[in-house]
Amino acid sequence: MVYSPINLKEKLAGFSDHWSPKIIAQMNDYHFKLVKFKGDFVWHHHKDTDEVFIVLDGEMTIAFNDGDVILKQGEMFVVPKGLEHKPFAEKECNIMLVEPAGTINTGDIIGKMTAQDDVWI
Amino acid sequence: MVYSPINLKEKLAGFSDHWSPKIIAQMNDYHFKLVKFKGDFVWHHHKDTDEVFIVLDGEMTIAFNDGDVILKQGEMFVVPKGLEHKPFAEKECNIMLVEPAGTINTGDIIGKMTAQDDVWI
Repeated sequence: MVYSPINLKEKLAGFSDHWSPKIIAQMNDYHFKLVKFKGDFVWHHHKDTDEVFIVLDGEMTIAFNDGDVILKQGEMFVVPKGLEHKPFAEKECNIMLVEPAGTINTGDIIGKMTAQDDVWI
Repeated sequence: MVYSPINLKEKLAGFSDHWSPKIIAQMNDYHFKLVKFKGDFVWHHHKDTDEVFIVLDGEMTIAFNDGDVILKQGEMFVVPKGLEHKPFAEKECNIMLVEPAGTINTGDIIGKMTAQDDVWI
């Protein structure tokens, strides 16, 4: 049997659009996704799940109603279930997300920033 | 409210023992753990869950009965539920594991390599 590693840099080189998560792995009923952030996302929350952000390179901010967190390369954060948040990145930033399969990027807010939840790369 | 990032390098600097995962974050009922590998682990499997390995630095191998996979910095692998495997690292290697809370590092094999499953750092 051939077992192949999943190389994050190779996967990141395979797409260039922003705010459009690509699935790279599945663990039980959870997906690991890569996504490129640049600029402002929309305020939203995920009513049924926590959401993990891991910064692979660059820097991003997650704004909350009562504060924010800046995440740099090699840093992560767990956004608690139900908490309103808005990601932002001044410059392009590469992120790994971990969340249940089927999680919609814009959570409760369906709009022009809403991406497909089932795109593998 | 103060929101703080989880810095992986700072967390890694906080311990030095091998094969003893430390929890750094919880997402729903899953744990994100850091662990330092060096040398040979034991053959084992996890009968109820997949297990994710992400290499933060260094290089490791996961041996299976019918092949193996070498993982370098920036690479990840999902060991399927129930599959016998044995991690190995010639030199010290820093890994992030993602798996359900309560997952035992040695799976079905309880022995001297079995670590506590509830140590946070």
